[in-house]
Amino acid sequence: MTENAAAPTDLLIEKLLSGDRLALARAITAVENEGAEGAAIMRGIRGHLGHALTVGFTGPPGAGKSTLVNAFVQQQRARGHTVGVIAVDPSSPITGGAILGDRIRMTGHSNDMDVFVRSLASRGHLGGLSRTAVKVLDVMDAAKKDVIVIETVGAGQSEVEIAGVADVKIVVAAPGLGDDVQAIKAGILEIADILVVNKGDHPLASQTVRHLRTMTGFRTDGDEVPVLRTTALTGEGLDRLADTVAELGERGRADAPVKRLKLLLGRVAMDICERKLQTGDPALTDALADAVATGDADLDQAAEKLLMAVLERLK
Amino acid sequence: MTENAAAPTDLLIEKLLSGDRLALARAITAVENEGAEGAAIMRGIRGHLGHALTVGFTGPPGAGKSTLVNAFVQQQRARGHTVGVIAVDPSSPITGGAILGDRIRMTGHSNDMDVFVRSLASRGHLGGLSRTAVKVLDVMDAAKKDVIVIETVGAGQSEVEIAGVADVKIVVAAPGLGDDVQAIKAGILEIADILVVNKGDHPLASQTVRHLRTMTGFRTDGDEVPVLRTTALTGEGLDRLADTVAELGERGRADAPVKRLKLLLGRVAMDICERKLQTGDPALTDALADAVATGDADLDQAAEKLLMAVLERLK
Repeated sequence: MTENAAAPTDLLIEKLLSGDRLALARAITAVENEGAEGAAIMRGIRGHLGHALTVGFTGPPGAGKSTLVNAFVQQQRARGHTVGVIAVDPSSPITGGAILGDRIRMTGHSNDMDVFVRSLASRGHLGGLSRTAVKVLDVMDAAKKDVIVIETVGAGQSEVEIAGVADVKIVVAAPGLGDDVQAIKAGILEIADILVVNKGDHPLASQTVRHLRTMTGFRTDGDEVPVLRTTALTGEGLDRLADTVAELGERGRADAPVKRLKLLLGRVAMDICERKLQTGDPALTDALADAVATGDADLDQAAEKLLMAVLERLK
Repeated sequence: MTENAAAPTDLLIEKLLSGDRLALARAITAVENEGAEGAAIMRGIRGHLGHALTVGFTGPPGAGKSTLVNAFVQQQRARGHTVGVIAVDPSSPITGGAILGDRIRMTGHSNDMDVFVRSLASRGHLGGLSRTAVKVLDVMDAAKKDVIVIETVGAGQSEVEIAGVADVKIVVAAPGLGDDVQAIKAGILEIADILVVNKGDHPLASQTVRHLRTMTGFRTDGDEVPVLRTTALTGEGLDRLADTVAELGERGRADAPVKRLKLLLGRVAMDICERKLQTGDPALTDALADAVATGDADLDQAAEKLLMAVLERLK
């Protein structure tokens, strides 16, 4: 243990690339901490990416998403794939991670050396979560996981963004209209590659499948989106889901690591911008707000001025 | 109706400032559409803001938030206040707004001329919602609503941001640990001025109140946050909630419109930045991604470069 802790980053990367479980855990922690070691790991693994098929699961609470993810993972294992799971959990650092961790441990995957589960909590700031998720995905990819599942607890804006990183994006819904359908937000519906109605033995399941088929007809990209029905508890529909995932996953997956890197670049750029705006230039903000308030400036022009002034200081 | 439609913006603003219901509805639509009329209205009302006390309700689904908001509105009416409600609903434009609208109509407020309810849906893009919410808040304030409630359906990042605009921010939780507490995310807990455990007659209510009191002890700002218990269905605890809101609302409310304007400036600046990054500079992004991939550039430096290049074009 002490020897491992003292091992140089190069050795850690080497072990990570060979699929070593402890090295994977340590590398993820380093990347999460966003220090020098994390940056070195990200550089070191760059040429070794593109093995994994990444699958995002998102959707409202109560849709049985966790049960479905567990069933999906079991099935991928049965097909002989090694699996990584990133559970994105923007809850309080005090309770969130632990609860989620316990839930996943309970399912029994923890005794399976080829399923690696990691929860990401927000640690008080929500913005950094999607950046971290993309990096952890790269690290698991470098460790040669065949399939990496990204599960988000909620269905908010940041969760949609995170799930959107995956090669195949699955949106899970529960049968029944009302709140459940309401919770399938526009942003989510637009990014879905597959819609799944879980709890497929529920009396309202057929109706919800039909309803979702109608809704996807409104998509701006005109893509046809498969609407599947599963019952995670009995395993029904899981085979078809796995087949569809495998099929869709073949589309343009070769450049997935570059796509992820570009997403990461944009995300980090936004984070820098937000940080600069938050520390900001209080005097200028006051002056601009005053100009807008008195009608001397237009809101959009003032905002543009603020943005440019704040970013001037990056130079 | 045709005469109204042809009325110039000045007349609309005049009617709005006098509290006319139809003018309020039309002004909100104009502001939502983000055209020239909306901009003119925002300028026209600027000197007439600062009347309303604004109250944000946020929290996970299932906490009985809507019932609580309805009870709170009824109680504010009983105290003689006029009320505006902004229901922020990031659902699909196809189903979301209608469902929420029906739910609110069912409560009977629609026959009360002094309660004005408006749902804001995301119309497919999530980013613009907080900008619109702040503007609609200004418009309702100009129409001399005494109290404006902002209710968010979910508890994601954008919802936290929107609720954060209010003078008094209320986070609603349901009794029982596990998912409910898990759903009270770090970001929400940090912004709360009041925590409410609704369904206060539930056997686990006391335990949740105690648990939340412990959690708020971890807040970085060290503020003491009142943890209240309500039962919206019977009205229990509502009086105390209204008193606490009124009391907290007095703190520094004089500059609320300026605070909102500054928030809006920052938000619009972020939106401009995001838009510019999305249209972006594909060739530069490719080159930067390549430099990071080959180890010639550091991720953060590359992101900074991207940000600056994209914003150069604002000049």
